[in-house]
Amino acid sequence: MEDSVVDGFLTEWHRLVREKDTAAIPAMLAENVAIGPPPYWNRLEGKDAVAFLLGVILSTIEDFTYRREWRNGAELALEFSGNVEGKPLQGIDLITLDSEGRVSKIDVPMRPVGTINVLIEKVTPQMMNYLESLGGDKQGEQR
Amino acid sequence: MEDSVVDGFLTEWHRLVREKDTAAIPAMLAENVAIGPPPYWNRLEGKDAVAFLLGVILSTIEDFTYRREWRNGAELALEFSGNVEGKPLQGIDLITLDSEGRVSKIDVPMRPVGTINVLIEKVTPQMMNYLESLGGDKQGEQR
Repeated sequence: MEDSVVDGFLTEWHRLVREKDTAAIPAMLAENVAIGPPPYWNRLEGKDAVAFLLGVILSTIEDFTYRREWRNGAELALEFSGNVEGKPLQGIDLITLDSEGRVSKIDVPMRPVGTINVLIEKVTPQMMNYLESLGGDKQGEQR
Repeated sequence: MEDSVVDGFLTEWHRLVREKDTAAIPAMLAENVAIGPPPYWNRLEGKDAVAFLLGVILSTIEDFTYRREWRNGAELALEFSGNVEGKPLQGIDLITLDSEGRVSKIDVPMRPVGTINVLIEKVTPQMMNYLESLGGDKQGEQR
């Protein structure tokens, strides 16, 4: 992985986070991007669904600010802090880039659990609506 | 921060984790080590309490295995995986070393939340017992 590819990814990633430009997320993701799934949805896969989830999370966390950053070839660890309803949140984007500098895998461990629970309460209804809007098609296919 | 200090820290840290040698934890910590506190205890500070908590967590997570590792001077990010009662856990030790190569700050974001909740259920009683054993002294001092 060339440093310039990672540099380019990080510059654009930081820009879209800073500007909450969620519309720019899909272009940063590989088609078959995988995310470590939260417990209550199993169907989350592919660029569109992962981009939607990341957009919802980014929109929900207040004062989202990147902190320490680690790079090891195509493996990145981007620490962030923020708030959810006034409760402090610390997390880290663990990102694997593909050869074209797009996210092929992302996991987002966070703490503390009290804030995670508030975040999930706020994110879940939006994800459920989104998944239902897909589910209609899938049910149709199963008939 | 010299690389050799970090190398020395990581060699010993990985050894004690591999061998679950919790008795070796205190010597790895600075006297005034800080940990990002879980929501339900506020008094957790200093080498002994942090070492106790880390020991309990290490003893509770099954199949604790370090994965990716990032280093940036004295700032380390050590990804791990494991299980708690059969549920998969992913986490990352975010560690700041002091000039002597001891942990001066450690935070441990984890996912997914379902497993975190099981872990906390198992860790809390042990921490409560530990804190109560300290609390007797502290109440005495306040009289």
